[in-house]
Amino acid sequence: MGFSKLWLEHKKLADTRKRVIISCDHTLKDSAAFDELKTAMRTMVPDAIVLWKSEVFDDDSYLIVLSVHPELEAEEYNIAASSNITEICGGSETGVLYGVFAFLRQTALAGGFASFTESAKPSQPLRMLNHWDNADSTIERGYSGKSFFFVDDELAVNERTVMYARLMASVGINGVVINNVNVRGKAKRLLADDYADRLEELGGLFGRYGIKLFICPDFAAPITVGGLDSADPLDDKVIEWWNGCCKKLFTKVPNLGGFLVKADSEGQPGPFAYGRDHADGANMLARAVRPYGGTVIWRCFVYNCTQDWRDLNTDRARSGYDNFIPLDGRFDDNVILQVKNGPMDFQVREPVHPLFGAMKHTKIMAEFQLAQEYTGQQKHVCWLVPMIRDILAFGTRHDLDDDRVSSVVCGVAAVANTGDDYCWTGSELAAANLYGYGRLLFCEDIDMEQLAEEWAQLTFGEDEQVIANVKEILLGSHKAYEDYTVPLGMGWMCKPNHHYGPDPWGYEFDRWGTYNRADRDSVGVDRSMSGTGYSGQYSPAWAEVYGSPDSCPDELLLFFHRVPYTHRLRSGKTVIQHIYDAHFEGYEKAEHFAKLWADLEGRVDEQIFKNVSARFEEQLRCAKEWRDIVNTFFHRLSGIDDEKGRKIYN
Amino acid sequence: MGFSKLWLEHKKLADTRKRVIISCDHTLKDSAAFDELKTAMRTMVPDAIVLWKSEVFDDDSYLIVLSVHPELEAEEYNIAASSNITEICGGSETGVLYGVFAFLRQTALAGGFASFTESAKPSQPLRMLNHWDNADSTIERGYSGKSFFFVDDELAVNERTVMYARLMASVGINGVVINNVNVRGKAKRLLADDYADRLEELGGLFGRYGIKLFICPDFAAPITVGGLDSADPLDDKVIEWWNGCCKKLFTKVPNLGGFLVKADSEGQPGPFAYGRDHADGANMLARAVRPYGGTVIWRCFVYNCTQDWRDLNTDRARSGYDNFIPLDGRFDDNVILQVKNGPMDFQVREPVHPLFGAMKHTKIMAEFQLAQEYTGQQKHVCWLVPMIRDILAFGTRHDLDDDRVSSVVCGVAAVANTGDDYCWTGSELAAANLYGYGRLLFCEDIDMEQLAEEWAQLTFGEDEQVIANVKEILLGSHKAYEDYTVPLGMGWMCKPNHHYGPDPWGYEFDRWGTYNRADRDSVGVDRSMSGTGYSGQYSPAWAEVYGSPDSCPDELLLFFHRVPYTHRLRSGKTVIQHIYDAHFEGYEKAEHFAKLWADLEGRVDEQIFKNVSARFEEQLRCAKEWRDIVNTFFHRLSGIDDEKGRKIYN
Repeated sequence: MGFSKLWLEHKKLADTRKRVIISCDHTLKDSAAFDELKTAMRTMVPDAIVLWKSEVFDDDSYLIVLSVHPELEAEEYNIAASSNITEICGGSETGVLYGVFAFLRQTALAGGFASFTESAKPSQPLRMLNHWDNADSTIERGYSGKSFFFVDDELAVNERTVMYARLMASVGINGVVINNVNVRGKAKRLLADDYADRLEELGGLFGRYGIKLFICPDFAAPITVGGLDSADPLDDKVIEWWNGCCKKLFTKVPNLGGFLVKADSEGQPGPFAYGRDHADGANMLARAVRPYGGTVIWRCFVYNCTQDWRDLNTDRARSGYDNFIPLDGRFDDNVILQVKNGPMDFQVREPVHPLFGAMKHTKIMAEFQLAQEYTGQQKHVCWLVPMIRDILAFGTRHDLDDDRVSSVVCGVAAVANTGDDYCWTGSELAAANLYGYGRLLFCEDIDMEQLAEEWAQLTFGEDEQVIANVKEILLGSHKAYEDYTVPLGMGWMCKPNHHYGPDPWGYEFDRWGTYNRADRDSVGVDRSMSGTGYSGQYSPAWAEVYGSPDSCPDELLLFFHRVPYTHRLRSGKTVIQHIYDAHFEGYEKAEHFAKLWADLEGRVDEQIFKNVSARFEEQLRCAKEWRDIVNTFFHRLSGIDDEKGRKIYN
Repeated sequence: MGFSKLWLEHKKLADTRKRVIISCDHTLKDSAAFDELKTAMRTMVPDAIVLWKSEVFDDDSYLIVLSVHPELEAEEYNIAASSNITEICGGSETGVLYGVFAFLRQTALAGGFASFTESAKPSQPLRMLNHWDNADSTIERGYSGKSFFFVDDELAVNERTVMYARLMASVGINGVVINNVNVRGKAKRLLADDYADRLEELGGLFGRYGIKLFICPDFAAPITVGGLDSADPLDDKVIEWWNGCCKKLFTKVPNLGGFLVKADSEGQPGPFAYGRDHADGANMLARAVRPYGGTVIWRCFVYNCTQDWRDLNTDRARSGYDNFIPLDGRFDDNVILQVKNGPMDFQVREPVHPLFGAMKHTKIMAEFQLAQEYTGQQKHVCWLVPMIRDILAFGTRHDLDDDRVSSVVCGVAAVANTGDDYCWTGSELAAANLYGYGRLLFCEDIDMEQLAEEWAQLTFGEDEQVIANVKEILLGSHKAYEDYTVPLGMGWMCKPNHHYGPDPWGYEFDRWGTYNRADRDSVGVDRSMSGTGYSGQYSPAWAEVYGSPDSCPDELLLFFHRVPYTHRLRSGKTVIQHIYDAHFEGYEKAEHFAKLWADLEGRVDEQIFKNVSARFEEQLRCAKEWRDIVNTFFHRLSGIDDEKGRKIYN
């Protein structure tokens, strides 16, 4: 299947110069930075020839000087641009590459060569994507086609992979996990010789674009690959097997960054089977990869997924904290714990995970999900970047110099929303999540309106109406989705398994620990100190705020508290009226977005217009189901009518 | 996979005779009747040699005389038995075969040769099984392994198929449809040459045992098999194609009885696509099979399966009647309409289908489901035969000489519960459904206690404790299942798609037209004349009974009426208290059955004991889920506590 270039589809500038001269040393001339600049200039200034180190420099020339300045940090860059000459310095080839992409972005946004200066270094040192791609080409929670990394159990390195690396580098992604954390089928053989040549090749490609390659190993690999009878992390034979495996692998694939591991979670193997804990498991792997500068990223998504719904005391929200806090300080320094943004699983609204700021002696990463598993599966538009920004900016109120999540983590990962669809992300609008995610991690202070505009212009061109409408859609989309699906922090009203569309009690009597416990009088789960005690996992300040329905933010009220439908929110509305209002208004917003998009007919590429239009049609159909089913559900339970007399079905 | 002989595992009699002499003419000597008798005698009287027409007849001999008496109906038989000699006459070879099986059954039950006479002819002329087997060996709604008719897209005729024919003949089945009504994959080629040789062979085998072979054709076969561009039943090319196809097929397979067709139902093709009606479609096929004495059985399971749950007027229960009543009198006389026992889909309790007795100018068959799709999937024990008996005995109160369902139909079919499991039916206890179904259709007055005893003794032998316990389990099983799942006729509280386990609102907001519409005050669907009007589809007498909550039988109350939880049933209980009582008591019954079975350890074959014990374990686990989830569901909605203070979870 073909593929678009997304935001790297460079547009022609209003510039008639005859020459663009790129000046740099021989090393940089072989770099991706040079290639990107040359490729872009040929499209953006089509009348010009693009030269390296030309002797001719006159009014009809534009000069760009690239250089590495070792006193800068490796990923840092400085740009000094004018209408005739631009200097781009980076702390390394990668820094220069980032500078080139920044220069191209600013030039494209300005519509021509302009005077500006920009100095930047990334806000987050580790900016990762996790692909949940399986060796058989399927993608777990993938809504954009099949895998472009794995085709029929083979690892592909081709034009599409090159385009992928270019796109990721252009927004500053510097680490990519190529396979699913649930390691199935042939993917277990990524540790064996089967894939070694292709991993080396892919690692080389990624390295050229400043991206470290990571893989998910099977924790049981000593058994499944090595033929041992145990995967006990304290067993000498197991340790020896991993040491040998990593020596071979990292030697063959020098750009391998390390492993991402999901262990003892939802059926995956792990150290628990041998009476060991997560520190035992992670450290064993960390020591095997240490000689090669490798890192082990260990997921904290560990909970009891065979809960009994009758049990009111067990609280899945508590599990990450309860499992990992006792291990604080026990992990080697090349282990990073990867913690989901909230305590449940990527719902449209969750409180920030209580482990952030609480594990003071452990490296932590935050994990988000761009794949819209619970947020409309790339059929509904839902721009997640403002939510990610808010979570990273969240002050944990732990006793720290800088208590924000962004400061207590050493990196950020997100589950990718890509696949082999022509537009990479199912809906073209979903590419704004991919773009914005990378840009935000590089520049945490970026303004969301500016970011939306920037992506829209780079993607669709400079038509102001297009930019304005797309911006309005993106900025309002998350709140609209929250409103017409599950407001007030309840979560989990989606259909089981595939997680698309409404089913208010689909999970209610199941084993997953995800209940709303609605009855005729009340709704919500008491996670305060009089309930499951989850609120006590936060710093004292937040524990106090979350611990009382009077101080708890409205948007999380039903996550933390069980209240009557007639409870007054801080907004002054009753809970039941808020539910009705949110659903009617959320649906109206979705209608408005669809209208904003429909108005762009003729202004955006026809194929894109039709693809997104079809998705809006489905979004409206589904949003109406959400609105009516959730409203009916609560009306049947509460018996309370809508104050405004709108139609609620029986 | 091996297979058991079920109730044909003959047991040794306490008889020491040296000779069993079977006297019959040469034709009968080649019949299945002779074979069955010889095979059985060799096992039942192991000391004897079994002879044909022996000259030696003394005190050490037992003589059985077989003969065909053309003045009897073809399937009729007479037996005159004594301790020394038995005469078995039949109206045809099949009649003799039925007489032989009856003689063997009575002899086995008596434990030896005894004096008795028996004259019988079948209550129902057409006694069919419908197998929902797919060509790829899967079975739709199959809970007993894979198909033994189809193995990897090939039709199998082998020892197992012979055993199948023997078992079916032994309980009087005389028609078998071997493939799924949803005709998928290679099964579409049953009409082509691909399967012709094997169909001929299987037809021959079945014919020897008095069984007509039927297949389900693809209604779109003129397109999918014939390569035409239409399947319009009034198109001359289509008619010509079917005529040619049937000529070839029926000539090749003389024992082919005809077709069973699911058209315009749940996505299957049909005449609606061409603006034709069901009579057009059925008659076209009927005329193609008529020259060969063939029959077209046409299913009436036609309804809108894309209903909007918001729509309170459309009622799926009405659809069979609404679709077919206008066509009464328009079907050719070799068309039989096959009507499910109730208007929905094989729920544990439904009213009898209103088409029975109402279509006075059309041949009708009743369809039941032995495959326990909605009744525990052969993990739960649920003996369906008493329910089938009750439905067949139901007086429709239409103006007829004999208004019972059994009299207004010309035959009965049931979806088979078999597969290639060792014991044929997943659980050995589920074989009682297969056995009892056949026996009931042959002898509609049979006593249920006697039938349960009979099956238990033939299957497990003469241990009185085994017979008593198995009988108690069977006789109480359907009511227990109804009690702990969905009492009062609500139906459809199972999990969607696979239909196993509780999910009270799993179908509530979906497109299938199966709603309970429970809210905080009331539950049930008003299908009276003030509601959807469904009750008016019955004869005036039943319309009156069903039309009012005061006269409607308790067990169907919530099918026909919407009432408050505090409504008093005819039993004197409130609806809510009945729900609680039924669930607690139903579960206790299931516990009691498991105990009755556990007490049989050492008394039944160990493999059977373990298989059934494991299923009881699952039944108890699942019954507890049903009890607690349904009770909690209604307690959350109604807020009304159990009068007896038993535990209902929040």
